[in-house]
Amino acid sequence: MSMLDDSGMAQAPGDVPRMRAAARDLRFSAIREVANAGIGRSDILPFWFGEPDRQTPEFICAAAQASLAAGETFYTPNLGEPALRGAMARYLSSWHRPIEENRIAITNSGVSALMLAAQALYSPGDRVVVVTPVWPNLVEIPKILGARVTEVPLALCADPRGVLRWDLDLAALLAALTPGTRALVINSPNNPSGWVMPAAQQEQVLAHCRRHGIWIVSDEVYGRLVFDAPPERCAPSFLDIADPLDRLIVINSFSKSWMMTGWRLGWMVVPAALLEDLGKLIEYNSSCAPAFVQKAGVAAVSQGESVLRETLSRFRTARDFLYQRLSALPGIDAPLPAGAMYLFFRVAGLRDSLALCKALAAEAGLGLAPGSAFGPAGEGCIRWCFASSLEKLDRGVDRFSAFLATGYLQHSA
Amino acid sequence: MSMLDDSGMAQAPGDVPRMRAAARDLRFSAIREVANAGIGRSDILPFWFGEPDRQTPEFICAAAQASLAAGETFYTPNLGEPALRGAMARYLSSWHRPIEENRIAITNSGVSALMLAAQALYSPGDRVVVVTPVWPNLVEIPKILGARVTEVPLALCADPRGVLRWDLDLAALLAALTPGTRALVINSPNNPSGWVMPAAQQEQVLAHCRRHGIWIVSDEVYGRLVFDAPPERCAPSFLDIADPLDRLIVINSFSKSWMMTGWRLGWMVVPAALLEDLGKLIEYNSSCAPAFVQKAGVAAVSQGESVLRETLSRFRTARDFLYQRLSALPGIDAPLPAGAMYLFFRVAGLRDSLALCKALAAEAGLGLAPGSAFGPAGEGCIRWCFASSLEKLDRGVDRFSAFLATGYLQHSA
Repeated sequence: MSMLDDSGMAQAPGDVPRMRAAARDLRFSAIREVANAGIGRSDILPFWFGEPDRQTPEFICAAAQASLAAGETFYTPNLGEPALRGAMARYLSSWHRPIEENRIAITNSGVSALMLAAQALYSPGDRVVVVTPVWPNLVEIPKILGARVTEVPLALCADPRGVLRWDLDLAALLAALTPGTRALVINSPNNPSGWVMPAAQQEQVLAHCRRHGIWIVSDEVYGRLVFDAPPERCAPSFLDIADPLDRLIVINSFSKSWMMTGWRLGWMVVPAALLEDLGKLIEYNSSCAPAFVQKAGVAAVSQGESVLRETLSRFRTARDFLYQRLSALPGIDAPLPAGAMYLFFRVAGLRDSLALCKALAAEAGLGLAPGSAFGPAGEGCIRWCFASSLEKLDRGVDRFSAFLATGYLQHSA
Repeated sequence: MSMLDDSGMAQAPGDVPRMRAAARDLRFSAIREVANAGIGRSDILPFWFGEPDRQTPEFICAAAQASLAAGETFYTPNLGEPALRGAMARYLSSWHRPIEENRIAITNSGVSALMLAAQALYSPGDRVVVVTPVWPNLVEIPKILGARVTEVPLALCADPRGVLRWDLDLAALLAALTPGTRALVINSPNNPSGWVMPAAQQEQVLAHCRRHGIWIVSDEVYGRLVFDAPPERCAPSFLDIADPLDRLIVINSFSKSWMMTGWRLGWMVVPAALLEDLGKLIEYNSSCAPAFVQKAGVAAVSQGESVLRETLSRFRTARDFLYQRLSALPGIDAPLPAGAMYLFFRVAGLRDSLALCKALAAEAGLGLAPGSAFGPAGEGCIRWCFASSLEKLDRGVDRFSAFLATGYLQHSA
């Protein structure tokens, strides 16, 4: 006999086995597709992935090594070690409104926190609104739970003096947040655009979502990477304005602030009433984060400020350098990003950013991320991660400019 | 205005925020409830959690420490480091039929692998059959994806000579695997019962599932912990009999074989055709396992055999000791477990295993897991983890026997 799979296609027992349609239909990483196009070139200058350029600071690694030496290799509590939850409560309360430990859960990465939020909130058919262009995970994760995603795009605008910046049409967003919408997902500072949502917009969105009972899922992993404020300031956060009972889940991670991408350690702030159920979901997703990884997290959050400030200063210099060089090229509309670690710029005449990035990798040895990887709103643009040395950025722009000078865009148009 | 949540209950914007019903309805860990009943007693003898009694061997920790010292703190490939996938392919091929690397994915724990399998296979409403009593995660995880779970219980039987053992009614299982069933989930060696599915039963189940296009999700994390075979043998595995194109997902973990519970490292074997889509799901759940944790995994799988044999020998001695002592108590029906690390025994007259285990924790300082934590099929039974020293097991049985002698079961009946 033959079976109907969930896409309504007959699948006979002898056929090649496949996943359900909802899993098959998830987007592949276009960045990885570009990286594959560069396989075989040993001279690639890689600016495609969203990863700081330096390894984790030694004092953070040392905390994990000491924990391992002490034999801390057993299960830990679902919601995280009390020492790390306490450290996070102190850290968050110093940056935002007071956040009690009973609203904090430690997760096995920021991605895992996003998945937990999706499992907590989304039933099949739920409407979820996402501000784009954005890191693909924010759009794809809700689909795994059967939610329907509506995108509200940022726009690249010029102010009266001709200065370019990515901007949110707040009225369009509020109009999209119709009654019955389950959640709004926002990533600010934004990957890829560097857009930072102003506090005033957050206030209006919060008021609107309160009125309609809409959840806000706020991905704030780049919250400490803002460049045009004193280092004592972080990006505006929903944690600055929300009450403990608001329908708000804030997602964060150790990856970008403390150069810990490979550690897979994150955290969530949720209404206290959700914490017990969240413990169950963590049990059923990963059970707990390793004790020695959490010890590294304690070291990072309690002793990491000087490293973070140095990183911020390095990234600011790199951002300004890349901005100046790219802005000087013909046909490039480059806005100065206010946060995160990417320059997301428009290339005049570009219709297929994936094809251009594959060609750049294969023919010019330059690794960049195609704007289309971040949704339809990103087509025509390129993302360049500037968490790198000036010397490498300089060579990268040389390659980029030389490649464009060959007339690629004219030939492909 | 007020909103309808997915349970059909009105939830006004001002109400205390809650998760969707499917998340709220997940089972809490009854074992944790028992552990909470023992809080405040410093003298608890803990046999409630499923965790080896010793810390991770030093050579495994050393591999992680060296990786950290070498600065391996960056993202890794979604499907795992090639070195670890290669080591797993060699390891698995040495124990089972040849398994190619293109069927292996590294995961951030065995639990995470189970969640990935659920996301890959289950659409809302899908029918999933689980053999119980079993570790609660196997029953709860499918519900997060909206699947409907049907349980097929093992039974505690006596053979003609009066020897007790947990047994599967194969005809009942095959009858439950009706056409249209999406998956069968089996955990053998079984937590909590120690039941090991015979190879002949696996053959019949595989043939039946092939006929009807039913997926088999086989949780084999205790596969190396079998006590009545020479140490060169592992438990019968579906990997011994399945073809590469069979609808089979095998879940495994480093936790139990190499005393690495706290590391959160596991793996999956899937049909090769699923691997690319599986990479996407891993990206959206955890992205990757830490490089230094994977280095520890390479050390474990390639140099861990002598440790594993010593563990096996210790656990066998502990199992036999606990079995003899418990069997000698009145009213105890204790089968000798063939695998895993638990003795799952029936207590005559026991109707509420959760209440008994809470009383044992609070009043006798003895930490055991209630049978009801493993589904209705486990009620009337108690799970005792014997991954412990004989001295501790001895004192534990003394406390158990003294407590029962107070007449608790008579009073509570």
